[in-house]
Amino acid sequence: MSSSHVPPDPATEPESDEVLPSGVIPPILTPLTPERELDVSSLERLCTFLLDAGVAGLFVAGSTGEAAYLTDQLRARVLQVVVSFTARQVPVLAGVIDMTTPRVVDRARAAVRHGANALVATAPFYAPTHPAEIELHFRTLRAAVDVPIVAYDIPSAVHTKLPAELVTALAQEGVLAGVKDSSGDLDGFRDVARPAGAPSFKAYTGSEVHADLALLLGAAGLVPGLGNVDPAGFVRLYQAARRGDWTAAMAEQERLRRLSRIITVGDQRRIGRYSSAIGAFKSALVQRGILAHATTSLPMLPLNDVEVDAVTTHLRDAGLL
Amino acid sequence: MSSSHVPPDPATEPESDEVLPSGVIPPILTPLTPERELDVSSLERLCTFLLDAGVAGLFVAGSTGEAAYLTDQLRARVLQVVVSFTARQVPVLAGVIDMTTPRVVDRARAAVRHGANALVATAPFYAPTHPAEIELHFRTLRAAVDVPIVAYDIPSAVHTKLPAELVTALAQEGVLAGVKDSSGDLDGFRDVARPAGAPSFKAYTGSEVHADLALLLGAAGLVPGLGNVDPAGFVRLYQAARRGDWTAAMAEQERLRRLSRIITVGDQRRIGRYSSAIGAFKSALVQRGILAHATTSLPMLPLNDVEVDAVTTHLRDAGLL
Amino acid sequence: MSSSHVPPDPATEPESDEVLPSGVIPPILTPLTPERELDVSSLERLCTFLLDAGVAGLFVAGSTGEAAYLTDQLRARVLQVVVSFTARQVPVLAGVIDMTTPRVVDRARAAVRHGANALVATAPFYAPTHPAEIELHFRTLRAAVDVPIVAYDIPSAVHTKLPAELVTALAQEGVLAGVKDSSGDLDGFRDVARPAGAPSFKAYTGSEVHADLALLLGAAGLVPGLGNVDPAGFVRLYQAARRGDWTAAMAEQERLRRLSRIITVGDQRRIGRYSSAIGAFKSALVQRGILAHATTSLPMLPLNDVEVDAVTTHLRDAGLL
Amino acid sequence: MSSSHVPPDPATEPESDEVLPSGVIPPILTPLTPERELDVSSLERLCTFLLDAGVAGLFVAGSTGEAAYLTDQLRARVLQVVVSFTARQVPVLAGVIDMTTPRVVDRARAAVRHGANALVATAPFYAPTHPAEIELHFRTLRAAVDVPIVAYDIPSAVHTKLPAELVTALAQEGVLAGVKDSSGDLDGFRDVARPAGAPSFKAYTGSEVHADLALLLGAAGLVPGLGNVDPAGFVRLYQAARRGDWTAAMAEQERLRRLSRIITVGDQRRIGRYSSAIGAFKSALVQRGILAHATTSLPMLPLNDVEVDAVTTHLRDAGLL
Repeated sequence: MSSSHVPPDPATEPESDEVLPSGVIPPILTPLTPERELDVSSLERLCTFLLDAGVAGLFVAGSTGEAAYLTDQLRARVLQVVVSFTARQVPVLAGVIDMTTPRVVDRARAAVRHGANALVATAPFYAPTHPAEIELHFRTLRAAVDVPIVAYDIPSAVHTKLPAELVTALAQEGVLAGVKDSSGDLDGFRDVARPAGAPSFKAYTGSEVHADLALLLGAAGLVPGLGNVDPAGFVRLYQAARRGDWTAAMAEQERLRRLSRIITVGDQRRIGRYSSAIGAFKSALVQRGILAHATTSLPMLPLNDVEVDAVTTHLRDAGLL
Repeated sequence: MSSSHVPPDPATEPESDEVLPSGVIPPILTPLTPERELDVSSLERLCTFLLDAGVAGLFVAGSTGEAAYLTDQLRARVLQVVVSFTARQVPVLAGVIDMTTPRVVDRARAAVRHGANALVATAPFYAPTHPAEIELHFRTLRAAVDVPIVAYDIPSAVHTKLPAELVTALAQEGVLAGVKDSSGDLDGFRDVARPAGAPSFKAYTGSEVHADLALLLGAAGLVPGLGNVDPAGFVRLYQAARRGDWTAAMAEQERLRRLSRIITVGDQRRIGRYSSAIGAFKSALVQRGILAHATTSLPMLPLNDVEVDAVTTHLRDAGLL
Repeated sequence: MSSSHVPPDPATEPESDEVLPSGVIPPILTPLTPERELDVSSLERLCTFLLDAGVAGLFVAGSTGEAAYLTDQLRARVLQVVVSFTARQVPVLAGVIDMTTPRVVDRARAAVRHGANALVATAPFYAPTHPAEIELHFRTLRAAVDVPIVAYDIPSAVHTKLPAELVTALAQEGVLAGVKDSSGDLDGFRDVARPAGAPSFKAYTGSEVHADLALLLGAAGLVPGLGNVDPAGFVRLYQAARRGDWTAAMAEQERLRRLSRIITVGDQRRIGRYSSAIGAFKSALVQRGILAHATTSLPMLPLNDVEVDAVTTHLRDAGLL
Repeated sequence: MSSSHVPPDPATEPESDEVLPSGVIPPILTPLTPERELDVSSLERLCTFLLDAGVAGLFVAGSTGEAAYLTDQLRARVLQVVVSFTARQVPVLAGVIDMTTPRVVDRARAAVRHGANALVATAPFYAPTHPAEIELHFRTLRAAVDVPIVAYDIPSAVHTKLPAELVTALAQEGVLAGVKDSSGDLDGFRDVARPAGAPSFKAYTGSEVHADLALLLGAAGLVPGLGNVDPAGFVRLYQAARRGDWTAAMAEQERLRRLSRIITVGDQRRIGRYSSAIGAFKSALVQRGILAHATTSLPMLPLNDVEVDAVTTHLRDAGLL
């Protein structure tokens, strides 16, 4: 094989002990009613839409799922609905986003109680944190619950980049079962994609725009927010990469890169980045007939008419309307 | 008066509707047992120590109180103990530190239920936030509870600086009753210290090192973490400033600036900044006989022996041992 | 004196060996013709305007003097004109703004040759730099020329904050004769304002908005860009502080703070900060009859009509038109 | 071709008007004597070493060439030696690193006079700069000289990221002939790698660690500082990519990634990043027998013995000693 590159196929490796899926695992949106209560019917439609597209898992209460904005009660409710409705057709990963170890342990125990198959936890935030403290954080969390832990590397939110050496060391010890890299740093990703001595470790990328490169570097899966809007596109991209067809993977990526501009429809007005991105994802799914409402949590601002029209244009250009 | 500057005295202004105190309001530490449960006896001793020194209020579950590290249950417990033990000799302000509006409203209702006289809330964090969203955040919070709201400006933790125009506008409308400025930005403080059209608005500084200048600019009070260790020093500083004796105020500040170096005892080892600061405050109060243990929350690292010795030296130099 | 604070008066200290002035030392603008050549007549008018207002020195080729934008030839020419025209009525300090030691030494030798009484040099920039390298930088510079060196602390431009311990140590050794603090960090300023063991060391603030506080903390002088526009105001502020009349100093500062908003007239359009600030200063001096043109260097964008009108309004409000 | 991806081959496109090379273009080091004068013999040996390895061009006075540290005289001298010694066997690109347009134009005219075939210029630095000002900067530079201009995107040094839309627009107009991307941002690189409507535009990556991915995305060439140390390795990587053999390209990259750790040998001591990187490159080439001295410019600190040993170890591991 001189002219191609096929990454080692996770599917051919022993997986007896593995819970973490390989493939596309959308960070599922949390549909809300206009009164900002959980819109259960829309959530169930969204689950069906994603499963029909061939996703390998669902990630509940991630950043795209408005985890930062959901009360503990609402987080529990979303998780219960997804676990119950999908009946474990695919693994359900749950975000346990909170500031520090004691609070994350509380969230983790609740998530396990409500049926999560694995947990996704960031480094501590609010207080600036030292790598040795991040290490203690993940060790403590791992000891507190009996499900796999995925480290969530999202410096834009927590203002710390997980050191590659730390992730690798915790992978080798089995403290971490995977990493979700939303840092945008492909060099760093390279260091954690397939750590020596941790054959079942799974590295996911949260990127909408370089999923192809991440797969080339050994990613086990994709966790793109945009995967809510076009799950079939990301599944095609993933499958092309799996069979080593990088030309097809890069072409699909190029189409999705263009579509990903819906994330920035609010830039002109300079509303918050999450208002723009989550507002656009929800608006797109209203337009595609999956969600009943585009309502987002407080204090996010809703998209205005111009911005909704921009979403429509991007969906048309991507062949999704 | 050509050679001095006496700031307008809040004490001579009508205060009938005011709940927020003027003076020193320490962000009270949360003493823990070695098992990391609330150390009620130490907390009560600390309350007595602070009240005896003449503080004007107590701020529970602030950053120095390890708010980011306390579970909701523990936050409630600390607040209940302080309210009950101090029997409202001074107003009790409670931090309601959480990521976004829905979660902060949950925390706020609980804090009011447990007896808080006023609430202290930051801008949203985790997700990057637009000023219009910060405005909506504070308006929503104010509408949800019936106690005064103090905006907590702490960019080092939440990665947003509260815009002075926003604070001023919300002060004039009565949405905000005060601001606690832990930004270190004295220019910005000048803009919010005494906003036109909001005579009862109170601006506090969280600074250990320029309390004197903040008072000169019109601060109503001081909320220094170091105030746990040397409340009498900050009360002297405050009183000197109130009577216009800036030479005395600056001399006291100079002594406290030197003492404030205990915050950085962990810098050499490069442990987290909170590990160093809160560890040093607790170690100092163990050495002064107020706390039984210097235990801090997970995942903070404890001070090592060299660092504890450095705290001792600083306390001796400041005449506190 | 229980109710005031008079800083130690530099004028009463031995100054036999001192070259560095105390008082207001504007960072003089570089007037340009529409063809972007030096406008000598305007420069001479500006010198007269500043000297008439009672400034204690002139700082040529600082950031406000567009040092970053001037060719070496033009920098030399400005310095020659100012030295020659003012005939050493006041000391002339020259900026030697360049990336690293060898280049700064080149600039320094040229400035001395053209008559500078003292030099103002930043930390190295472009390449990230370690404190020990900054130390070596200043030592090498000091050894290369026989005039006093002022360290220029301007993190917004060079992306390094000069460590207070380094400034203090170099002050005590006589490597640095002064510091110009344009960092906005008053806490840091406190540490370098009057370093022990360096009685003739002079600390200047570059701040337009907290000159009063800097003087209270021991500043020897003021180097505000806005001092080009209203030198008399800054001289009044300085003199009030010198006689301990902080009420008058703070009132003058308040007026100048309002005037300083001309620096941000371009914010709406989001042009570069220097385009806005230097454009506004030059526009103001055209309106006050001192400069013939408001031309700035490439690639700065000129103010538009709305922005010029905003400058006019601010000048009127400050009583300067 | 379902299982590979061969980027469009620049070599098969019409190149009649093209000056910019495709391939490996090392940013050549500037060898110094212990007295910090140009070491001409070492420079000539280095030229021969690089040309023998098959490089496609040489980039003089870039960041790795210590441009920020060289006086104008020394920059001219290096360029003259390289142009004269290599006798235009390959194109010579010259960095024109300076703060703003007037100064860069000065540098640019000198570089053309001394024989540069193309120029490499950053966005303005020192003063914060607006995109419209960056645009004016490159337009003015292009109008001032008659050689191709390559935009140098190096936010770590100039603290501005070149906007992809600006680079693309200036490429389409012919203002920019290429871009050297040292930003580390592969997503941004994707947007400028092969801009529509600019068929002869060349995008280079300055990355040592993702040259493979950059080539996959359409890079025309590599400009890695580490290319001084192992030019043959980068030439192999480039050639593997050109023939679509990504497995070989990625394996070579992996070896070079390990070697690239010599850049961080000074991290432990926390010396400046350039001191560490340039010191390591020079030390490596002394050890490989190309340079006579590892001297770097002031104020960079030299490597210590431990760090030199670490360089040796890395060279051995990479099979270069």
